[in-house]
Amino acid sequence: MSKSAVQSSFAVTARNRVVRRPARGRYDKATVYEILDSALLCHVAYVIDGQPYCTPTTFWREGDHLYWHGSSASRMLRAQAAAIPVCLTVTHVDALVLARCGFNHSINYRSAMVFGTARVIEDQAEKFAAADHFIDRLFPGRSKLLRSATAKEIKATAFLRMEIEQASAKIRNETMHDDEEDYSVPAWTALFPIRAIVGAAVECPRQMEGVTRPEGMTSYVAGRSLDEVMRECHRKVFGDPR
Amino acid sequence: MSKSAVQSSFAVTARNRVVRRPARGRYDKATVYEILDSALLCHVAYVIDGQPYCTPTTFWREGDHLYWHGSSASRMLRAQAAAIPVCLTVTHVDALVLARCGFNHSINYRSAMVFGTARVIEDQAEKFAAADHFIDRLFPGRSKLLRSATAKEIKATAFLRMEIEQASAKIRNETMHDDEEDYSVPAWTALFPIRAIVGAAVECPRQMEGVTRPEGMTSYVAGRSLDEVMRECHRKVFGDPR
Repeated sequence: MSKSAVQSSFAVTARNRVVRRPARGRYDKATVYEILDSALLCHVAYVIDGQPYCTPTTFWREGDHLYWHGSSASRMLRAQAAAIPVCLTVTHVDALVLARCGFNHSINYRSAMVFGTARVIEDQAEKFAAADHFIDRLFPGRSKLLRSATAKEIKATAFLRMEIEQASAKIRNETMHDDEEDYSVPAWTALFPIRAIVGAAVECPRQMEGVTRPEGMTSYVAGRSLDEVMRECHRKVFGDPR
Repeated sequence: MSKSAVQSSFAVTARNRVVRRPARGRYDKATVYEILDSALLCHVAYVIDGQPYCTPTTFWREGDHLYWHGSSASRMLRAQAAAIPVCLTVTHVDALVLARCGFNHSINYRSAMVFGTARVIEDQAEKFAAADHFIDRLFPGRSKLLRSATAKEIKATAFLRMEIEQASAKIRNETMHDDEEDYSVPAWTALFPIRAIVGAAVECPRQMEGVTRPEGMTSYVAGRSLDEVMRECHRKVFGDPR
């Protein structure tokens, strides 16, 4: 077990310290992992020949490691096959928060920034396992219902694995507020909640007769928050985030 | 007028070429700008001493330039005050698309990746104008209703401006599909739409009596797609994206 696996918070250095609004910063794994596990998508920053790139991708967490996949033909993998220093960021927007001056306008959000070195998984058995975990993380138990992956499909897919070396979370969860003297400004002021939601399932028109929605897909209820669905599915598969 | 402003597509080089799934790539400004203008949030990748960072932030587009803001105390601005090469990415997730094998699972999405060099706006008048545009981009006409920004507030805020040197969009908008021989696999298969929506306004408990929701805020209707609201507000302020 790595050193970080037995600690409940990440070490804070210049790299992951929340510089601006330090009161919003969190370094405990419980907070960081909850933000990560509630997300379908992350953005990965990496560098090729001094040029930064920011690539959106789906991902998942297992313990103190993050996984994501890409094509074996992708830019990142072609450029840096061995070890890729990355910053992987997840952001949930919860509200637009208005105020009576521009400066006090804000956004409620939960974000997590993770630092580490991504490595391509070379082992075939590990690649097959990662392919199953990727499906099951989104749709618990689904990998067992599917046609198995072929060697050709696995060859065409690259899986990346990264130990979370350091991370930080940043959370704003406040209602609107103004400087006392600004409450006399006649500007209509409110907070608009923002939520990513799952819509009603559109079934495949070639659905096999008699096949019904399996147990593992019960979290996907129309109108539910995508965050909640992602978190619930992650827990079904990998247990409590600790 | 810059050269790029009179062209309708971005030049394609190794930096912005869509490597994986090139059929999904688009380089015309109309497509790229629609994706950008539909977004509240972007992720900005930049490099400090070889380390990539990926920072989420709100932003907006005016013509062939992007703008965003940060604290004058932020990491990015403290580290590189003059000119910052960045990759700024916007991603909208539209659906989870299932299939009867892992390999054919997918996501419907619209993403835009923009390359350029961000510069801090130093001119005071330009900074005041940027502060107003930032508010108006989100809430058309609102800046005129607010208490004006103070010199102290403007000093504490850094605005970045970046000409869009190159960009690309990548779009997947397909329904589910399987290899013909897989349709006999008895796995329930569907597509789940995903949508970010605006909730009902939570009014400030200290709302001034008689103050009502202004014209510029009519796009914010509970249950509407955030994409649509962002796009509509952007057009109200800056006109059609061309």
